[in-house]
Amino acid sequence: MLKGIAASDGVAVAKAYMLVQPDLTFQEKNIEDSAAEIARLDQAVADSKKELQLIKEKATANLGEAEAAVFEAHLTILADPDFFGKIKNKIKDEKINAEKALQDVAAEFISIFENMTDNKYMQERAGDIRDVCKRVLAHLLGVKLPNPALIDEEVVIVAHDLTPSDTAQLDRKYVKGFITDIGGRTSHSAIMSRTLEIPAVVGSQSATQDIKEGQLVIIDGIGGEALVDPSESEIKQYHQKAADFAKQKAEWKQLKSAASVTADGKKLILGANIGTPKDVVGANDNGAEAVGLFRSEFLYMDSSELPTEDEQFEAYKQAVEGMNGKQVVIRTMDIGGDKELPYLPLPDEMNPFLGYRAIRISLKRQDIFRTQLRALLRASHYGKLAIMFPMIATVKEFKAAKAVYEEERTKLIKAGVPVADDVEVGMMMEIPAAAMIADKLAKYADFFSIGTNDLIQYSMAADRGNERVSYLYQPYNPSILRLIKNVIDASHAEGKWTGMCGEMAGDQIAVPLLVGLGLDEFSMSATSILKTRSLMKKLNTAEMKQLAEKAVTECETTEEVVALVKKLSL
Amino acid sequence: MLKGIAASDGVAVAKAYMLVQPDLTFQEKNIEDSAAEIARLDQAVADSKKELQLIKEKATANLGEAEAAVFEAHLTILADPDFFGKIKNKIKDEKINAEKALQDVAAEFISIFENMTDNKYMQERAGDIRDVCKRVLAHLLGVKLPNPALIDEEVVIVAHDLTPSDTAQLDRKYVKGFITDIGGRTSHSAIMSRTLEIPAVVGSQSATQDIKEGQLVIIDGIGGEALVDPSESEIKQYHQKAADFAKQKAEWKQLKSAASVTADGKKLILGANIGTPKDVVGANDNGAEAVGLFRSEFLYMDSSELPTEDEQFEAYKQAVEGMNGKQVVIRTMDIGGDKELPYLPLPDEMNPFLGYRAIRISLKRQDIFRTQLRALLRASHYGKLAIMFPMIATVKEFKAAKAVYEEERTKLIKAGVPVADDVEVGMMMEIPAAAMIADKLAKYADFFSIGTNDLIQYSMAADRGNERVSYLYQPYNPSILRLIKNVIDASHAEGKWTGMCGEMAGDQIAVPLLVGLGLDEFSMSATSILKTRSLMKKLNTAEMKQLAEKAVTECETTEEVVALVKKLSL
Repeated sequence: MLKGIAASDGVAVAKAYMLVQPDLTFQEKNIEDSAAEIARLDQAVADSKKELQLIKEKATANLGEAEAAVFEAHLTILADPDFFGKIKNKIKDEKINAEKALQDVAAEFISIFENMTDNKYMQERAGDIRDVCKRVLAHLLGVKLPNPALIDEEVVIVAHDLTPSDTAQLDRKYVKGFITDIGGRTSHSAIMSRTLEIPAVVGSQSATQDIKEGQLVIIDGIGGEALVDPSESEIKQYHQKAADFAKQKAEWKQLKSAASVTADGKKLILGANIGTPKDVVGANDNGAEAVGLFRSEFLYMDSSELPTEDEQFEAYKQAVEGMNGKQVVIRTMDIGGDKELPYLPLPDEMNPFLGYRAIRISLKRQDIFRTQLRALLRASHYGKLAIMFPMIATVKEFKAAKAVYEEERTKLIKAGVPVADDVEVGMMMEIPAAAMIADKLAKYADFFSIGTNDLIQYSMAADRGNERVSYLYQPYNPSILRLIKNVIDASHAEGKWTGMCGEMAGDQIAVPLLVGLGLDEFSMSATSILKTRSLMKKLNTAEMKQLAEKAVTECETTEEVVALVKKLSL
Repeated sequence: MLKGIAASDGVAVAKAYMLVQPDLTFQEKNIEDSAAEIARLDQAVADSKKELQLIKEKATANLGEAEAAVFEAHLTILADPDFFGKIKNKIKDEKINAEKALQDVAAEFISIFENMTDNKYMQERAGDIRDVCKRVLAHLLGVKLPNPALIDEEVVIVAHDLTPSDTAQLDRKYVKGFITDIGGRTSHSAIMSRTLEIPAVVGSQSATQDIKEGQLVIIDGIGGEALVDPSESEIKQYHQKAADFAKQKAEWKQLKSAASVTADGKKLILGANIGTPKDVVGANDNGAEAVGLFRSEFLYMDSSELPTEDEQFEAYKQAVEGMNGKQVVIRTMDIGGDKELPYLPLPDEMNPFLGYRAIRISLKRQDIFRTQLRALLRASHYGKLAIMFPMIATVKEFKAAKAVYEEERTKLIKAGVPVADDVEVGMMMEIPAAAMIADKLAKYADFFSIGTNDLIQYSMAADRGNERVSYLYQPYNPSILRLIKNVIDASHAEGKWTGMCGEMAGDQIAVPLLVGLGLDEFSMSATSILKTRSLMKKLNTAEMKQLAEKAVTECETTEEVVALVKKLSL
């Protein structure tokens, strides 16, 4: 039995597929028979080619042409006579084994490509060469590289961690669940598991050591545990749990068009967090009543230069139109921190999370900011659009950003461009100093949206991506709840509203507390919406208010708050 | 007229000494006459030798043998026949100019020394070779290296920034003031200027561009400005200002043995922040009533291995004995963040300020923590010692640290070791989450000491060492004042006290606000104590309470708070 963190609901039973990199170290050797060594190399190349063709086919069928393109690039390298000619000459001339010759020539080519600093496309080819050589080396050594795209039976993935490129290759038809050694509820792999609706346990510490390829594994993404080589009766028990969960999910689906109301009839808003305009499909499918956070970064990250005003306008328009009159809150550019743009070099910083990012960049680089604001204002004509500024710390910053907005708005109206007259302009609440003066900020901002990931990390002075201090990522700590209460109360006193767009908004322990604190809008991964709507139906606001009051005034620790919520019979 | 940040009080008028690195780039050339080129090199070496001997003499006389030792090492390198023989051979064999030959051979030697990773002493020699070659190169190129140790007339130093090794070479007798391009009130150069009591302006942006060597400069460290090439009447005016300041300083000296009381007779405590036991001399000379912060890091940083219990005991004992029964608050190890120990490798972190540091390390590495606690407890017998834990974020952490303390205390008492029975155990208040639950923490901690540098940087999510976001280092922002108020009120409700040991405690704008908020103890650079005691005599607590109340409830921005304080007639 392995214990971990429940990352995505559901139960899965399937054979383990170890997504673990094999040991590719080798001995350098002098060889006598260079012809035989070259033949070994040819065989490894041929095997790699066969394998890559298969992967490419599978990837095209399962994931589409675009995702499969990378394997086409790999095949081109495999067929490069110059590259493999050099390796063969090296084997002949220096009488060294194929592994060593391959490694040396690859290192040479990789270095050449990496130094093409004025050609980003060629630079990226270095990674392709690295991948291809890894595959050929694995064949030379007779070890197996994991090939997630080739999976054609039901499996449970076991990995140290899952990278974005790993998850891009996973086929939901066959991948029934996964378990990782590291990560927490807000790590990339956990968020992906919820988006893909695959049961998952993360942060198990030792899954890759304790589980062997092909072993039967039960992943319990509800309880946050995994069972290796389960008995018949255990399998039966978990199948029951899976059936119960499927039934519950079907019930949740019934709530798709229902309003989000508490047991005593208080109306709340359940929204989705999205990253691209395409994501509105998933938002609508899961009954979102709004988009509480549209991250505009994809426009900047998926591009080789700053996106134009028209490109941005089209994307924002598509999103607001897709939501059919429901509100779409678009966050202005949140670049910096861990998000870099190749075409916008930012200074190296000792502590990027405490550095030059988001609104701090927008206020300095007003050319970029104004372009975005104009695109947003133009799109506002096509639906219900709201704008929010990230990383506001002071009243001065909010007023400065709002003034730039007003200038662009006035200019557009003067130029006769149609612009909605009900655009709300609010701000992210993610910096402790801002939460402390929420009453002052509420005079200027139309709404607040609490970004819990950053708010918690700054309040606790602990980088949530740093494993040594991740124990301080405590959403339920009374200190965090008090900051949240302060923000909500301040907004209400000015007749404004407060939403939340961090992971916490869809967290089943947090939701009763947030209802009690008076939160107006809950925005989360689309796949968490229906579950949360179901939970809300069971909550009485007066009772939750008492619960939250107790957590905020009486509890000293996270553990005490969790115990309090768990005493509720939900 | 240059504007900057007032870093250290006082006024100075003197000629500018440009502590600016000259341009040492050169052309690689092929030469015909290698004998002449070798003669050029010999001359440059001879000139460097003469210069270094002079610097060594001056440094020995002004700063002592230990500080001068580095120049002895440089002279040894200058006399190395192997090193210069290689350079001469290169000139002869390759027909290249002396600059290029020097650079190439130096690079080779530096690389050899730097790679001696198992011998730290030899590794550090790489820096010496670099310094010596820079000097010889400057003589080859006919440019002047600044030599602060050679200054023998009254000057004002102009620099981009001052490093610790720059300031170590400055002779207070001749250096009357300084001005830098970068830095803020809490940068190294600003803190040094206050310790040395030298008028200083930092963060002027352009001093090194706007001032030329030898120009007359007035440094106004009170107003935070500098005047270049002043007129006779301006000089007169500033001489008057300097005289007034000297008179005021003399008046302050009268307060050395006075109590710290407000105009209406409220008794407060003015303490000193110290870094080593030797600093108690300065604390006593400046009339400190306590040591509010003894940073124990020097024990760990000035050592090549973990300090033993006895070494620590001696240092703590010396400090408490030196303060003659006045309280000495010792902060347990605050390593990590930007403070590294060569013998305690810490993981590379993306955001070290949000990482594994201070109490987070102590609670994991209890071997180190327990050794320190035992040394502290043993020293408590010799004076009035208090202990505080840095970087506490949660009640759980404080209770865990306190429990370790209690265990060591019980063991020592059982073993018959004398231990004071009135040791107060408190904590730094420097993490926003902790300030939010100060009422809960006050049940367990005997006192709080607010560390404003970190508290502000976390609350604002802005690294104060990062120039691009340093505008967010706002001690007077209502958000920060509210956090401080929360901490002070919470401690008083439990009958405990709150001190402050950040730069803010001695800040003349902050002090009226802090008196109004009810702060009990103010700990600062020793040289700021008497000035602050003088200021306190003018403050009426009821009025300051009103002032602080207004700042906390009515003001929206830093600027409004500053305007409010400046309206006081002090």
